[in-house]
Amino acid sequence: MGLGLHDEKGITLRGLEEARSSEAIFAEFYTSRLVGARLSAIEDLLGKKVRVLAREEVESGKAILEAASRSRVAFLVVGDPMAATTHVDLRLRARAAGIRTRVVAGVSILTTAAGALGLQAYKFGRTTTIPFPAPGFRPVSPLEAILANRRAGLHTLILLDLREDGTFHGPKEALRQLLDAAEAKGAPEFGPEALVAVLSRVGSPEERLVAGRVRELLHQDLGPPPHCFVALGALHFLEREALEAFAGLPQGV
Amino acid sequence: MGLGLHDEKGITLRGLEEARSSEAIFAEFYTSRLVGARLSAIEDLLGKKVRVLAREEVESGKAILEAASRSRVAFLVVGDPMAATTHVDLRLRARAAGIRTRVVAGVSILTTAAGALGLQAYKFGRTTTIPFPAPGFRPVSPLEAILANRRAGLHTLILLDLREDGTFHGPKEALRQLLDAAEAKGAPEFGPEALVAVLSRVGSPEERLVAGRVRELLHQDLGPPPHCFVALGALHFLEREALEAFAGLPQGV
Repeated sequence: MGLGLHDEKGITLRGLEEARSSEAIFAEFYTSRLVGARLSAIEDLLGKKVRVLAREEVESGKAILEAASRSRVAFLVVGDPMAATTHVDLRLRARAAGIRTRVVAGVSILTTAAGALGLQAYKFGRTTTIPFPAPGFRPVSPLEAILANRRAGLHTLILLDLREDGTFHGPKEALRQLLDAAEAKGAPEFGPEALVAVLSRVGSPEERLVAGRVRELLHQDLGPPPHCFVALGALHFLEREALEAFAGLPQGV
Repeated sequence: MGLGLHDEKGITLRGLEEARSSEAIFAEFYTSRLVGARLSAIEDLLGKKVRVLAREEVESGKAILEAASRSRVAFLVVGDPMAATTHVDLRLRARAAGIRTRVVAGVSILTTAAGALGLQAYKFGRTTTIPFPAPGFRPVSPLEAILANRRAGLHTLILLDLREDGTFHGPKEALRQLLDAAEAKGAPEFGPEALVAVLSRVGSPEERLVAGRVRELLHQDLGPPPHCFVALGALHFLEREALEAFAGLPQGV
């Protein structure tokens, strides 16, 4: 079941009903995290204790599947459920164990980000995620997704990784990783002059949107986490106007 | 503000609060439509009358902008707001008139469809929409989106057009349009053997998912509208397993 974004008010009425009528409620906050709600606010809303599972508990699935074999169980995740492979895997194992499951949809960053910026949903190519940098680990897939989308005139939504302790990857560091990768690869299409829109706490009352050239954004206040950003493709005039109005894109860039 | 999918229970708690605290509520149901809720159910939930606008009233924006210049106004749309250009345009005009606006995100078909099928969100290329057929009007862009995505191994979410009177375009007719377009273009990558997953009332309690070859789906019961479908790209083994489990994809195809 999806909790939506930001705080406990992102849940749908359907989700609320389903959770309240469950006998046990589990949650995971390692694939994403609600920054606007303490666990106690969620528990107050649902009228029940919520058991938060660590990554290995979700992956093993033991506690949830055991509880679900006896009674009605809800499993809460941030955003829209089933985006993570682990969730699909868990649902498949429930089915193999003869447990009926139902997905309760939630608000997702994938569409909220486009809408907040006034970008057209059908002009997005594949989404990508930038992981934390690590010695000897320099994935090129995020840059490749951006380049392939750009060649087709499309935007790329870029998500940022999250550590299991709840630390969010920062947008400036991620932009620098992309610049380094583009330089190493010899791909001038993504350089300091590239147009990007950075979103902070999208969908929340504190939402902040900043659009401009990469080199400018590296020196601007991009708001508090969580962030995501969009590497912009070809802009329709209405998209440009929306970016100027709602994300401060400088005119004429 | 997004109403989510299917019925009045798809709204988020944030949306509910915002609508209830508005002095006037407008809605449009021509870009999409809730099949599981009468207008009276929405009005009961919100505790207020809702004024439903026709396409030209949304495009002119007159009634909404006038009301919004005097008081707090909510504008309800199905799914996630700002997916339609008209909504972005309306928001820009509100801003030009000095009216503060806020987007309240909703559940979107774009991510719900992927999650319901167990398909990985980052394996989708651009989304496309198939319009009703009309004499002399044979858009090739839906087929081109599918072909470009397939070449990159990606899935394509395909939405179906809606007439302003509320009639939904049917998935079988849309599949036939695609087959005709592929034959006319000489594109054997999308033919009767192509793998497709059709979704009926996704995100609702009546959700129905059917996956298989196009030629087989043309003779199967695909459930009641609204529909959308996914032209499948390269399948990860977990995606295949999920399609077999939840959408009846025959084994070994």
